[in-house]
Amino acid sequence: MAARLTANRYGKSAVRLVAVERDGERHGLRDLTVEIRLSGDFEAAYRDGDNRRVYPTDSMKNSVYALARRDGVGALEAFARRLAEHFLSRSSAPSAAEVAVSERPWSRVEVSGRPHPHAFVGGSEERRTARVELSEAGARGESGIVDLVVLKTTDSGFADFARDELTTLRSTDDRILATAVEARWSYGGSAVDFDAAWREVRRHLVEAFAGHRSRSVQHTLHAMGERVLAEVAAVEEIQLRMPNLHHLLVDLSPFGMDNPNQVFVATAEPFGVIEGTLRRG
Amino acid sequence: MAARLTANRYGKSAVRLVAVERDGERHGLRDLTVEIRLSGDFEAAYRDGDNRRVYPTDSMKNSVYALARRDGVGALEAFARRLAEHFLSRSSAPSAAEVAVSERPWSRVEVSGRPHPHAFVGGSEERRTARVELSEAGARGESGIVDLVVLKTTDSGFADFARDELTTLRSTDDRILATAVEARWSYGGSAVDFDAAWREVRRHLVEAFAGHRSRSVQHTLHAMGERVLAEVAAVEEIQLRMPNLHHLLVDLSPFGMDNPNQVFVATAEPFGVIEGTLRRG
Amino acid sequence: MAARLTANRYGKSAVRLVAVERDGERHGLRDLTVEIRLSGDFEAAYRDGDNRRVYPTDSMKNSVYALARRDGVGALEAFARRLAEHFLSRSSAPSAAEVAVSERPWSRVEVSGRPHPHAFVGGSEERRTARVELSEAGARGESGIVDLVVLKTTDSGFADFARDELTTLRSTDDRILATAVEARWSYGGSAVDFDAAWREVRRHLVEAFAGHRSRSVQHTLHAMGERVLAEVAAVEEIQLRMPNLHHLLVDLSPFGMDNPNQVFVATAEPFGVIEGTLRRG
Amino acid sequence: MAARLTANRYGKSAVRLVAVERDGERHGLRDLTVEIRLSGDFEAAYRDGDNRRVYPTDSMKNSVYALARRDGVGALEAFARRLAEHFLSRSSAPSAAEVAVSERPWSRVEVSGRPHPHAFVGGSEERRTARVELSEAGARGESGIVDLVVLKTTDSGFADFARDELTTLRSTDDRILATAVEARWSYGGSAVDFDAAWREVRRHLVEAFAGHRSRSVQHTLHAMGERVLAEVAAVEEIQLRMPNLHHLLVDLSPFGMDNPNQVFVATAEPFGVIEGTLRRG
Repeated sequence: MAARLTANRYGKSAVRLVAVERDGERHGLRDLTVEIRLSGDFEAAYRDGDNRRVYPTDSMKNSVYALARRDGVGALEAFARRLAEHFLSRSSAPSAAEVAVSERPWSRVEVSGRPHPHAFVGGSEERRTARVELSEAGARGESGIVDLVVLKTTDSGFADFARDELTTLRSTDDRILATAVEARWSYGGSAVDFDAAWREVRRHLVEAFAGHRSRSVQHTLHAMGERVLAEVAAVEEIQLRMPNLHHLLVDLSPFGMDNPNQVFVATAEPFGVIEGTLRRG
Repeated sequence: MAARLTANRYGKSAVRLVAVERDGERHGLRDLTVEIRLSGDFEAAYRDGDNRRVYPTDSMKNSVYALARRDGVGALEAFARRLAEHFLSRSSAPSAAEVAVSERPWSRVEVSGRPHPHAFVGGSEERRTARVELSEAGARGESGIVDLVVLKTTDSGFADFARDELTTLRSTDDRILATAVEARWSYGGSAVDFDAAWREVRRHLVEAFAGHRSRSVQHTLHAMGERVLAEVAAVEEIQLRMPNLHHLLVDLSPFGMDNPNQVFVATAEPFGVIEGTLRRG
Repeated sequence: MAARLTANRYGKSAVRLVAVERDGERHGLRDLTVEIRLSGDFEAAYRDGDNRRVYPTDSMKNSVYALARRDGVGALEAFARRLAEHFLSRSSAPSAAEVAVSERPWSRVEVSGRPHPHAFVGGSEERRTARVELSEAGARGESGIVDLVVLKTTDSGFADFARDELTTLRSTDDRILATAVEARWSYGGSAVDFDAAWREVRRHLVEAFAGHRSRSVQHTLHAMGERVLAEVAAVEEIQLRMPNLHHLLVDLSPFGMDNPNQVFVATAEPFGVIEGTLRRG
Repeated sequence: MAARLTANRYGKSAVRLVAVERDGERHGLRDLTVEIRLSGDFEAAYRDGDNRRVYPTDSMKNSVYALARRDGVGALEAFARRLAEHFLSRSSAPSAAEVAVSERPWSRVEVSGRPHPHAFVGGSEERRTARVELSEAGARGESGIVDLVVLKTTDSGFADFARDELTTLRSTDDRILATAVEARWSYGGSAVDFDAAWREVRRHLVEAFAGHRSRSVQHTLHAMGERVLAEVAAVEEIQLRMPNLHHLLVDLSPFGMDNPNQVFVATAEPFGVIEGTLRRG
């Protein structure tokens, strides 16, 4: 009997970085959480406790702050890329580096209709994300959004589905449709304006959700992905994951009341999950 | 030895209600979580298991949906009041009813700059709250807001504080100040426009936070409460609770770098908490 | 118009302390979370930003570690008391100090049936708690337990309750009863063995829950409190809060199956909450 | 421009099942959370909203309850397998089914040293898991454990690691090592006693962690995996993921105190993560 280490990976999670971008009196605010993973020639560390090639995860954390100070943050995708390159340049031990960054949105406070120079109010749970994997095989990057929570009160149904003896769900042609979109997409070209493209993708996801006559979450997911590919030329592929945040019509008939799609109970468990990947071409 | 029941209270928590308010094609959306507590003459239930006076918490839940259907939701404070009155009117057993309601904000989707009739995007973690306690002694109500997250990148210091041999904190005249405001206030008069007053209180909390030259969280908390009492005549008293969401300046000197208030680490634990109540007069 | 500060309180939350108690080769492990609040003559700080009497919450945190090192932790109640005394002795500004401590349980690892000297495995979500309030009016202390999760699969019913037209719940004489007990109690005398008494209270809470023929959560709560007062002489008063962690019998009749209390769905929302305080005498 | 659906998957998450296993007076308790995913020939549903082949996620939920009633739960791995087979047998649309099950542990209450027939106390955060993927390509199963929290107060160091100008971490030959083990393993043969094997794997993970002289988390992870492969013949491969739950020695020197590994602060963010896969042979 012998045991072989067939895969390894290590790094730092939940590195919290808040950067203030000063432009005279006017301050910008970036609120990021960074995750780093290295893999490669680390067998001696795992097997023998030989740490000579192990770059400490504490130094990974330091690197995030030092690079943010030296070069600023800029587009999330570019920051993730610079970090990944930095870690591979440190040593020959890692053969691959993966960096994932998530950004929390803040809104500038308005006072008497004018933007305040340095005060911000916390935004939604929504996060912008970016991920870069760098190895000898090249670079793979993706942009994304998580917890983009959207809801429509009509133009959504679910009917004519497969039934068997374990089916009790009724068909409906009018229900609430709600989800927390998780989207990850990759770009085809190299000269992408990441910030502008991200805003376009987000806008089209929301508008496609709002305008679609939905026959199912699957149906709406496809329409959203199709719209992004149609409208944002730089996007090559998009993965979507959409939990069904069920809103059940409350049966008020025991109380002698009707309920024409007015009173719902939002439920957290169990929940459906729909996933799909769409590709250009 | 005998044991006496000296206090009792029971009810339902986490009743989730989503109400669609239909005005022709245009739909409104209300997303509420309701909590109910009754107390009173329930000793036989606790002591002997005699349930004859126990109104089931399941019926409390049903009541929330039935009343929402019958009368609509309207202002949060009014909905809490109607529910409390409803529960006390059901039976003579409870001598007091407490109803707390929390509302999640949703924003209407815009498509090409125009508001969509029935699609919404999830708002921030911020919640509007209302609470009513009703008993023979009368009614007590309060309005509130929780998780109003605000941050300013300057105009905040903390210096000249008390020191002893266990003090290692350095004075600073420029730091990030961030908090998640929890505010609860009561109105003096009876004819209050709850929705308009709530918006005004929120606006003044945010503007006072933004504009204040802060010497401490205590100092800013007081300025915020003072501003609300000065600007919103209907408010009689306001309680504020403001955790200090610490953002620590990263020491980059080991790497030969300065850090002129640009790169911070946001920390979750431990955290300071500052509370204060201000009253008119 | 003038605003008066009518209440104030500030302090530190989530101070995490892990203490290793070394007894030769054998190590003990204490895992505590501490919360501190001071109130008193702090008006100048709130109103004017005069920090001269403000003891920093950072120094409160330091104090927790320094006192743990100097005197050890010992019984949770005694540690909370020493901390409260320490904070009041620092300065005349605070007139009251409140310290709450929560302890996470760890179990010693066994290897081949023998206790390991320094390895531990994480225990349940249950926490032992203690709280001390110290002021000129004297000291008030309480001991407690939170998230003591218990469940019984029978010997529990809920029937013959109050009904009205909004009641749809059916009576049952056999259901699952599950709760996460939160108990807080105070001792009458002064020479209490806190650790021994705590273990006794916990044991009687669990045994009373297990052995009771429950007609309702209220009924079981009362039996649990009564048992503690009967069996643990030092306890003067006990407050209990017991959420009803509903387990609903699944209706399998649409599939031609019966369900004699075998298959349940555990639900998280909404949930009932039952509270009661019992006092000796 | 055309968009192709290149991957699809849908199902139900967070299906909560509590099953009472009755053996006369003595009851057993199983507390499971089930997750189901189907993928296959669903393009018409996504693209056109044609639901005729879409088996509702609500029926998936019903199936969990009906199968638990009909056949009982038994070993977690076998239950997951039966569910996966059930879903593939329903229709030709899905070409693959994935079922993941997680079990929460409960401990039987003891009264006066004797096991109670039907009362239970909630166990730790630890969960036993099983996952089965079934497709034309065959079946792949894995067993696992998540949130197995372990800590040792000594016999752990981290020294002689790679350094550069961004490294500030100091070497240590004595620190607290704590982690929440996530392990997933597969069996080589077919006639495995899943319950017995799971207990053996868990025991060896804990004992190897306790007994190892750790030079790093990587080193301990490898020792744990190696031990499992050495001691549990049925295991073919094991994946381990071990976050480093950092416990930092508090610097008490500003207060004139030493701290010989006695007082630590447990930190939640940031945290290291170490992963590795070991295979027999």
